[in-house]
Amino acid sequence: MTRLPVTMTCIGLPTPGGPEALVPETRPLPQPKEGELLIHVAAAGINRPDVLQRQGGYPPPQGASDVPGLEIAGTVVALGSEVQRYRVGDVICALVPGGGYAEYCTVHESNALPVPSGFSMIEAAGLPETFFTVWTNVFERGGLKAGETLLVHGGTSGIGTTAIMLGKAFGATVFVTAGNAEKCAACLNLGADLAIDYRAQDFVAEVKSATGGRGVDVILDMVGGDYVARNYAAAARDGRIVQIAYQKGSKLEIDLMPLMIKRLIHTGSTLRPRSVAEKAAIARALEEKVWPLLSSGRIRPQIHAVFPLKDASKAHEMLESSAHIGKIILNCGV
Amino acid sequence: MTRLPVTMTCIGLPTPGGPEALVPETRPLPQPKEGELLIHVAAAGINRPDVLQRQGGYPPPQGASDVPGLEIAGTVVALGSEVQRYRVGDVICALVPGGGYAEYCTVHESNALPVPSGFSMIEAAGLPETFFTVWTNVFERGGLKAGETLLVHGGTSGIGTTAIMLGKAFGATVFVTAGNAEKCAACLNLGADLAIDYRAQDFVAEVKSATGGRGVDVILDMVGGDYVARNYAAAARDGRIVQIAYQKGSKLEIDLMPLMIKRLIHTGSTLRPRSVAEKAAIARALEEKVWPLLSSGRIRPQIHAVFPLKDASKAHEMLESSAHIGKIILNCGV
Repeated sequence: MTRLPVTMTCIGLPTPGGPEALVPETRPLPQPKEGELLIHVAAAGINRPDVLQRQGGYPPPQGASDVPGLEIAGTVVALGSEVQRYRVGDVICALVPGGGYAEYCTVHESNALPVPSGFSMIEAAGLPETFFTVWTNVFERGGLKAGETLLVHGGTSGIGTTAIMLGKAFGATVFVTAGNAEKCAACLNLGADLAIDYRAQDFVAEVKSATGGRGVDVILDMVGGDYVARNYAAAARDGRIVQIAYQKGSKLEIDLMPLMIKRLIHTGSTLRPRSVAEKAAIARALEEKVWPLLSSGRIRPQIHAVFPLKDASKAHEMLESSAHIGKIILNCGV
Repeated sequence: MTRLPVTMTCIGLPTPGGPEALVPETRPLPQPKEGELLIHVAAAGINRPDVLQRQGGYPPPQGASDVPGLEIAGTVVALGSEVQRYRVGDVICALVPGGGYAEYCTVHESNALPVPSGFSMIEAAGLPETFFTVWTNVFERGGLKAGETLLVHGGTSGIGTTAIMLGKAFGATVFVTAGNAEKCAACLNLGADLAIDYRAQDFVAEVKSATGGRGVDVILDMVGGDYVARNYAAAARDGRIVQIAYQKGSKLEIDLMPLMIKRLIHTGSTLRPRSVAEKAAIARALEEKVWPLLSSGRIRPQIHAVFPLKDASKAHEMLESSAHIGKIILNCGV
């Protein structure tokens, strides 16, 4: 067993605020508890909830590290008691409840997955948050089936690019909205059947036209606000609308008649507060259904940029600019 | 085969309006089409959608009779082509897309069910609309399971009394809201575990208290308006809220955050516009799962009052007074 250091570099958040609030700190290594792995983190993904946490609006769930970061890839360097599956030296990627922006991080082994074959640590670190989110919301909660239509808002986000790839891989027709022609082109490149420039086009009219007036079966929405009524209009009878955020707000005026007349299902979920067991169930489904598609090279995550760990603030600046297409990753090994 | 008359009495609706808009008329008998039965109607149930139709707000679906009436019981007196299951002389009850307030009515055989043993025609006529509605919304759409909790608004309505009986029969804990102490007592008599007088008590606080703060798993709502936000507050994590009407309106201001944070499912449906095949699927489920409970006497519908067919206007007056507990039925054989 490798000799472990006593302290590590991680990104602290002494005071909530803008990107500059993310400050490198030196802390003791976290200790793996029962069933947990200690991971020497090679790379960590950046996600929208990290920005909310940085701004002070999304405190970590009880028991989670106050260090930001919800997904990592790295090498197992120590085991808590009762670990069954993994051994020191295994390379894994994992969904973590916090603590990812660091050189070392703990995770329950059931929330870890093997790094798919042929994947770099940088690529693997960008998988967990978006793949867990898309799988549980689009396929489990939204019940997307082959032959159905999926509308994804924010098509070039990490969530969006993952939803396009998974939707297509599982036989759906995928429509997306994105903010300019370049982003629309990127979505089409990833396999989207139709990309709607939401600044220039009305997505309701476009998806109605593309479906012969029928509307779409599943909508993955992180926008909220006026999109809610427009999603109801764009949905087909028996359509399912899944909220994973409300970037334009959750308080709104709405006519709920379409919920009843069109028999819509409006639901949503958040990932971070779920129990280890709930996340483990998603991990098992992903390993069975999705990991083979990654290992075979059939789908490949989009990495937009990589920053050194100490430059987490720059990574956040880029995320907030919304200029990216795909994931932004921290390299924690430099 | 009995000689059939050429004309029948039915209730017409020459001009939309109050209860007095319902006027007895003489019309030719309807003719059964392929797969349809001609029923000599013994009794017909009165339902809320009939009131909306009378007021001009709920036109019959395409192809349906303009005569009101969504449920009947009676005797098969003639068959269209291709009828498989029923024979002349069989007694059935059925969900019909219209035309129930009449001496004769047609229905597709797949939307008919046998009269449960020991049931009068009056009792049988009150079954289809509420049993189809409660089954498809509470059990299929809402997914109520044994051991879960169900909140039913309008506990003394036809829908409400049926939801209490079916909820209890299938192992749920059932809470109801009702408008006064007498109605609350009636709901408790039917088996409800808790009856909340909504004029005197806050149903959110009451169901929270009754569930140790957890909230309820399924809510059957026909109220809408400010009840929507209160239903979100009263629902447990992973709760399902099913709208079958919006008596207080569907346009409202709402904070949709709980849909995401509590992973609620908000949905709803209407029965009348569904296809014959969709209604047939519900009928098959009812016959398998619920009809045995009726034939064994384990559950028994609540009949509040019976009026002769020609007095349909009086029956509507009573329904609109909301003083009833259970179903109001037209006797079409007098």
